[in-house]
Amino acid sequence: MAIINGIEGFFNPESVAVIGATSDPKKFGNAITSNILNNNDLKSEIFLISNRSQIIRGLRTYNSILEVSREIDLAVILVPANLVSNVIDQCIEKKVKKIIIISAGFGEINEEGKKLEKEIANKCKKSGIRVIGPNCVGIQNVNAGINASFIQTPPKGNVSMITQSGSFGVACLYEMSLNFLGCAKFANLGNLIDVSFDEILYYFKNDKETKVICIYVESILEGKTFFDTLKEIAPYKPIIAIKGGRTKIGMSAATSHTGSIASNYKILKAAVNQAGAIMCEDIYDYITALKTFSYLPIPKGDRIGVLTNSGGTAVLFSDYIEKFRFKLALFSDDFKKKIAPFLISLVKVINPLDMIAGAEEEQYYQVTKAMLEDPNIDIVVPCTVIPPFLGIKVDEHFNGMIRAWNETNREKPLIPLILFGNAFQQLKFLAEKEKVPFFVTPREAGWCCKFLIDRMNFLKNVKISNL
Amino acid sequence: MAIINGIEGFFNPESVAVIGATSDPKKFGNAITSNILNNNDLKSEIFLISNRSQIIRGLRTYNSILEVSREIDLAVILVPANLVSNVIDQCIEKKVKKIIIISAGFGEINEEGKKLEKEIANKCKKSGIRVIGPNCVGIQNVNAGINASFIQTPPKGNVSMITQSGSFGVACLYEMSLNFLGCAKFANLGNLIDVSFDEILYYFKNDKETKVICIYVESILEGKTFFDTLKEIAPYKPIIAIKGGRTKIGMSAATSHTGSIASNYKILKAAVNQAGAIMCEDIYDYITALKTFSYLPIPKGDRIGVLTNSGGTAVLFSDYIEKFRFKLALFSDDFKKKIAPFLISLVKVINPLDMIAGAEEEQYYQVTKAMLEDPNIDIVVPCTVIPPFLGIKVDEHFNGMIRAWNETNREKPLIPLILFGNAFQQLKFLAEKEKVPFFVTPREAGWCCKFLIDRMNFLKNVKISNL
Repeated sequence: MAIINGIEGFFNPESVAVIGATSDPKKFGNAITSNILNNNDLKSEIFLISNRSQIIRGLRTYNSILEVSREIDLAVILVPANLVSNVIDQCIEKKVKKIIIISAGFGEINEEGKKLEKEIANKCKKSGIRVIGPNCVGIQNVNAGINASFIQTPPKGNVSMITQSGSFGVACLYEMSLNFLGCAKFANLGNLIDVSFDEILYYFKNDKETKVICIYVESILEGKTFFDTLKEIAPYKPIIAIKGGRTKIGMSAATSHTGSIASNYKILKAAVNQAGAIMCEDIYDYITALKTFSYLPIPKGDRIGVLTNSGGTAVLFSDYIEKFRFKLALFSDDFKKKIAPFLISLVKVINPLDMIAGAEEEQYYQVTKAMLEDPNIDIVVPCTVIPPFLGIKVDEHFNGMIRAWNETNREKPLIPLILFGNAFQQLKFLAEKEKVPFFVTPREAGWCCKFLIDRMNFLKNVKISNL
Repeated sequence: MAIINGIEGFFNPESVAVIGATSDPKKFGNAITSNILNNNDLKSEIFLISNRSQIIRGLRTYNSILEVSREIDLAVILVPANLVSNVIDQCIEKKVKKIIIISAGFGEINEEGKKLEKEIANKCKKSGIRVIGPNCVGIQNVNAGINASFIQTPPKGNVSMITQSGSFGVACLYEMSLNFLGCAKFANLGNLIDVSFDEILYYFKNDKETKVICIYVESILEGKTFFDTLKEIAPYKPIIAIKGGRTKIGMSAATSHTGSIASNYKILKAAVNQAGAIMCEDIYDYITALKTFSYLPIPKGDRIGVLTNSGGTAVLFSDYIEKFRFKLALFSDDFKKKIAPFLISLVKVINPLDMIAGAEEEQYYQVTKAMLEDPNIDIVVPCTVIPPFLGIKVDEHFNGMIRAWNETNREKPLIPLILFGNAFQQLKFLAEKEKVPFFVTPREAGWCCKFLIDRMNFLKNVKISNL
């Protein structure tokens, strides 16, 4: 699609004009100005257009974009809605290439606003200018240091997000940071008068920095196009989706259109999954999916090996093994012989392997490694409850797992289940430093396995259908 | 039940002997010794019995309990399994009143162990001594400063826990601390040769410091007694339950007995709920239930009022309103008039009330308070995504909610939904300081409402059936 080239300019502009910049910290125009300038990695040249301040953050300002002598690749507009049309005319005269209209007060409030945004769309189209917005949070190219939005700059990473709710995006980025998940690109498009959801998805598909795509949707206007897009992208990159407004009450909170949307959610979900994307029901599962695909390799098979120092944790995880119909790996005699020296006599050598409360780093290292090396095990789930006794170190089990994973070149998925491990900063430091995820409930570890196994099967089927 | 008096002595002994005390930090005997002595609130006198060390943590030790001149209320035994029987004989001779056998290596490992523990049970019974264990973590009376277990001392509070998995208990206490949930009493009973699960439950029922009871079970030996116990207690205190081993694989991880337990989980769950206790499917829901009943009052009705600065969050929460068939309160004209001055013109005055991204502490305070005071609203759910812009403070919305709750004497349940708010230490400090819970996902807030409304209805029905 030639159209994709149209999108690149939004994410990699050489020059950006912020129209409606201000030094007043209580205005969104200030939030964007600060965000875009507050970045060491920024290579673009920035021009601030303001009719209020003469100097903002050390930059002189211009009264109008027409006063800027350099070519402008991207204009970000934050002036009040009634002034936007004039500013657009100036952008057209200036021959800017792309426009993001952040300002609200258009189609989302009344018919007059709808008319106004349509006029803007028409004149931009005539001039060959692509438009994102209006009524949006904006976009970010995190690795390039471009934050053309009024929300926080997340850590760099490989997850790209497009969200129909700006505030959901904000919150999700908070939780991603807590889980050491970084962001490549971010987009919130508002009223969609030109650039579409699907175009951004295609752009993410071709973006080398994007490994995982995540989306939040409330309403899908053109179902067929959307599903075709998902279907084309899914073989290349995992797409994790969640929908707000799955029920009538939820949807009427989302829009004033009630209708029969509730009864359609099941169909929507089936279609999304059929297209090869992953529709999550719960926002923690959504974060789990991002962790899974951002960090872990796709397995070669579905036989799971479980070790633990906590019977209860293995029991709770085993309930997910049955719920999702996973396979527990069978331990071979060779394997049993290999791990025997590291187990105390009370241990029954069965899968899940309960090494009992006293197990230390060495046992975790040896048994995790033996499982990662075993040809009959495809996925390894080491479980632990951090023991508050015997002087056992908080991070020693996790350390043992990581050493084993590193020494086997991280070829198989390692899914550390550290029950309620969020209580420990040391674990978080280690996870961040070593870039190893950990999961804190049996549900998270269970879903992680399920996401991986489903993706493995999907990719196998894609290959077969392409033969 | 006269038997309950038998339990009190375990939780409030005036004198405790630790038999198997040691200064070796790699032994469980040391963990208990440290735990029991490491407590400013301890009023009991402690005697350490050790054949290895002469002084431990400043206390002289005794070679045998028979050397101690004072009466001993409680003996905690940690010597190796093969020495336990002898030690028990000494305890009988010494006329100790209660015994906790922590040591493992009994009925849980083989037939010989079963025989041994039965002999111990018999001779204690003959002597009128009650016994907890063997093969257990021990017990705690947190408010009295008694930690007769080898696990961590949790913060003081009003939740009492009995768990069949010691490690689940450990992890759960970690997560409870993260959520500012304190503990009143803790018990893990091991092989149950004498004191039963039900006796502890009755003890918790009568314990003034216990407001909420939580249990983790893997196998229920005497179903009828268990359900009768739950039924008797439930009208007085909420009982939150979770079961490990809900499926065949899970159960076979829990025991070597496979059988037909998986197919029975649904029946078990129905029976537990029928008895008035609450069976949770997910361990986060379990924590949510503890937060709910530890912190919040039972509502007088089921009409929910929702306010938000984030459309997406209200949409996701609204899906739970429909899923659980909750009622959204209708805003009266009086109510609309009352809140109008605090809303900007773009706001549609409907429930959920989206005050839009710029809403600050004042709006949250005023609208939350108006809802708490409104006769048509029974439960208030203020939602927020912490805005990373306009200089809005991280904790100002939460502060506004808390002020409103305090000024209405905390009479109605306040359920702050701060989407992925775990990212912010300031919120945690505030929650802890003000003793106000917050919930970080729509699911948590949804379940909180459900637990409260179900409990309200249960208590109404109990009253009616007692007429």
